Amino acid sequence: MPEENRRFLLAERPTGPIDENTYDLVREEVPTIGEGEALVNVKWISIDPTNRTWIGEEPTYLPPVAIGEVMRGLGLGEVVESNNENFPVGARVQGLTGWQDYTVISDANPLMVVPDEVQAEPAAILGVLGMTGCTAYFGMAEIGEPKEGETVVVSAAAGAVGSVAGQIAKLKGARVVGIAGGPEKCAWLVDELGFDATVDYKADDWRKQLKEATPDGIDVDFENVGGEIMEAVFARLNKDARVALCGLISGYNETEPPPGPRSFGNLLIKRVKLQGFIILDYYPRFGEAIRQLSQWMAEGKLKSEQTVVEGFEELPNAVNMLFEGRNTGKLVVKIG
Amino acid sequence: MPEENRRFLLAERPTGPIDENTYDLVREEVPTIGEGEALVNVKWISIDPTNRTWIGEEPTYLPPVAIGEVMRGLGLGEVVESNNENFPVGARVQGLTGWQDYTVISDANPLMVVPDEVQAEPAAILGVLGMTGCTAYFGMAEIGEPKEGETVVVSAAAGAVGSVAGQIAKLKGARVVGIAGGPEKCAWLVDELGFDATVDYKADDWRKQLKEATPDGIDVDFENVGGEIMEAVFARLNKDARVALCGLISGYNETEPPPGPRSFGNLLIKRVKLQGFIILDYYPRFGEAIRQLSQWMAEGKLKSEQTVVEGFEELPNAVNMLFEGRNTGKLVVKIG
Repeated sequence: MPEENRRFLLAERPTGPIDENTYDLVREEVPTIGEGEALVNVKWISIDPTNRTWIGEEPTYLPPVAIGEVMRGLGLGEVVESNNENFPVGARVQGLTGWQDYTVISDANPLMVVPDEVQAEPAAILGVLGMTGCTAYFGMAEIGEPKEGETVVVSAAAGAVGSVAGQIAKLKGARVVGIAGGPEKCAWLVDELGFDATVDYKADDWRKQLKEATPDGIDVDFENVGGEIMEAVFARLNKDARVALCGLISGYNETEPPPGPRSFGNLLIKRVKLQGFIILDYYPRFGEAIRQLSQWMAEGKLKSEQTVVEGFEELPNAVNMLFEGRNTGKLVVKIG
Repeated sequence: MPEENRRFLLAERPTGPIDENTYDLVREEVPTIGEGEALVNVKWISIDPTNRTWIGEEPTYLPPVAIGEVMRGLGLGEVVESNNENFPVGARVQGLTGWQDYTVISDANPLMVVPDEVQAEPAAILGVLGMTGCTAYFGMAEIGEPKEGETVVVSAAAGAVGSVAGQIAKLKGARVVGIAGGPEKCAWLVDELGFDATVDYKADDWRKQLKEATPDGIDVDFENVGGEIMEAVFARLNKDARVALCGLISGYNETEPPPGPRSFGNLLIKRVKLQGFIILDYYPRFGEAIRQLSQWMAEGKLKSEQTVVEGFEELPNAVNMLFEGRNTGKLVVKIG
């Protein structure tokens, strides 16, 4: 057994990007387990935009991480000691492990066993076959509901959720337009993932690109970003369009909430249905999504991409990478 | 037969409220009818916020009224000459009559016969038993879907649609909070219509009033207004709340669309379903709504209020009355 448990504890709430004062890195003893509990050695941490929202002042769909508390995060690890037959030694488990080497599974901290039949690399288990894939699946298939021939726009399309959401829309027969930062990501979306068109939001003429990429307007917006890009997308929504409101990452580093879209009135005129969703609500149905996503992957219809950062100490900076768009596909940190 | 047909033709698009240059009042000959047509003497005109949106630059759910064209408006009249057995002389008809004394029913301009069993005063036929009542009915019953004990907020609650929408929510067992301008309207909502609480948006402390009137948050927002009131309401929406997006009157007189709500992010965090709707889409189902509304009226469960302005020349100013909140309930102009 190793002798220490590295942990990132929240030291202060950032006003803007995470910086060197946000966390304290501490080294504690490896926890001991009681009756019915199991000890998990965490090896991979998933980096998600919601990490940033969890350390703000305001409660979101979960209470904010408290000062002095271990940073909340999704992770994947292995059971190394167990007093619970549901979590045998050697089992792979995922869930809210926190940013630490070790966590204890208990009634208060349940994790999910990854079934043996899920054969994929760890980053994919946290990505397309985990919370990320489920987010894309339910958001696109059940809220966006693209129909054959409709135009679907996905923002942050080269990100973990966006890249999967766009591919699902293609599988449903839609024309898919991805919004991403830079020509490399845009080329990757078209050449590798089969998107029909892209908009490079870092280009000066992104508004023109959006217009040209959506000559028939927009029927589905899978929204990950917010801000002026969402404003421009809303202005092009067609009658009876759907907005799957998944994320608003452009505002998460702001101290004041940004103004809403000036094109808000188009939601009325075009009879738009907008639905906000948080993937945790779909937890009981994850199995259904993961089965479908695994099948598409096995059939070669769904591609998965990961950006892997190595080293426990890189965790805080990895969150900033997301906000700067320095990842393609799922961003994970290998800590073990 | 009278000798002339007064008509308001659109002269120029206003930048702000309608003024004396917006329309030309002309006097033309009474039109003659062809085969299959019928002549209607229009007697009552319905004044609606959408009148203002129809004379802007931009197409909404209908094309803008063209310069030189008769002003679009809903009206109620009587068939005075007919070459069509579906529209016998003496029949009451309603629909898009335009702001004029006479209109011709044709294939291109269909109106709807008011069934004989609808026994109500003309202003009520244009109001609670017409488009207005249908808007309140479908928006509240099918989009808002209030459940017993939930908190429903209605903006422009003393207006034509809002006053009916709030009463429908009460009939569904909800706690209903009306937002209206001034103590008289607020008192009327509670004392006459049975609202549970009100917020006077003209009072300095309206934000505090809203908070106190919704101690358990807001489950349904029947939105007629937009702007900072909507922003404050969105910030108080509960998990799984619904927004029936019916109107955004606070922005209709603006030349630039106003910023959207800063509380937009709460739609995501609280998994809100927002649905924009335009009542014309429900046209095939008007009968169902009017039957239910008539029944509630007959049982004394639904009250209807009208503000009647007399005189054809008052039509343009009547639209401004709506924006200044100078009406209670349905606003109609008696022109005949």
